[in-house]
Amino acid sequence: MTVKVVQDFYLDEFAHCYGCGRLNKDGLHIKSCWDGEESVCQYTPMPYYTGGFPGYVYGGFIASLIDCHGAATASAAKLKEEGFSLDDRPLSRFVSADFLKPTPMGTVLELRGRAKEIKGRKVTISVTLSAEGEIRAKGEVVMVQLPEDRK
Amino acid sequence: MTVKVVQDFYLDEFAHCYGCGRLNKDGLHIKSCWDGEESVCQYTPMPYYTGGFPGYVYGGFIASLIDCHGAATASAAKLKEEGFSLDDRPLSRFVSADFLKPTPMGTVLELRGRAKEIKGRKVTISVTLSAEGEIRAKGEVVMVQLPEDRK
Repeated sequence: MTVKVVQDFYLDEFAHCYGCGRLNKDGLHIKSCWDGEESVCQYTPMPYYTGGFPGYVYGGFIASLIDCHGAATASAAKLKEEGFSLDDRPLSRFVSADFLKPTPMGTVLELRGRAKEIKGRKVTISVTLSAEGEIRAKGEVVMVQLPEDRK
Repeated sequence: MTVKVVQDFYLDEFAHCYGCGRLNKDGLHIKSCWDGEESVCQYTPMPYYTGGFPGYVYGGFIASLIDCHGAATASAAKLKEEGFSLDDRPLSRFVSADFLKPTPMGTVLELRGRAKEIKGRKVTISVTLSAEGEIRAKGEVVMVQLPEDRK
């Protein structure tokens, strides 16, 4: 049996995502399959996707995997709930609802950050991301200070 | 006055981050500067960083900007709180505390997703990311179905 990849069934117009679009030649080509009651995705990051912690995967890369795999799981789960399978009908495209507004391409993005709380090794930062004068996304991130054993 | 870039002051061992490491030749080179009581970062994504919604920026890219800019803001805010400026002493490196455990490089990552709730156009998905048999990150993402006006 051939395992079907959810992203292969996205309509062409929705197949240009950097993370999972089959038509984005520069992208990551994240692929999600259905496995019983779950969806599954396997990916080995290229060696340059390191994070701030040497030898470990970049947080933004992990967020990308979760985002695209989540979107594919939503498409497949919705289709299944409606009683269809991948070959039956065009697949609906889902995107993350975490953002306030879509962020347009082709313009400069501006991020502003503030320390909300500094408590020992933990610092909480609030960040806004704006484009064309409007806030498109907000984030509150808890950052932890790495040990400085190198001294 | 030359504006100083926080990431230029990371120690070499912490300067390989895909998002903001000055020593990662394949990376994004996100740069953050201090501006009064805030930090600021400006970035124009390359045209291939599109998301599932045509013409808009990829959510994983937005998460990457927020993550790296948040980490730089935390480093700079902590230094400032201690009464130092960038030239005074080595900068501490902060990383996001959102993840359960660091995710190692050089191994396959496995993501599993499940639909937790399907409610009209909104589907909530829970995702785990594992490496070497251990869960490293969990995410719960609310995904929204794009309108299908193309029909």
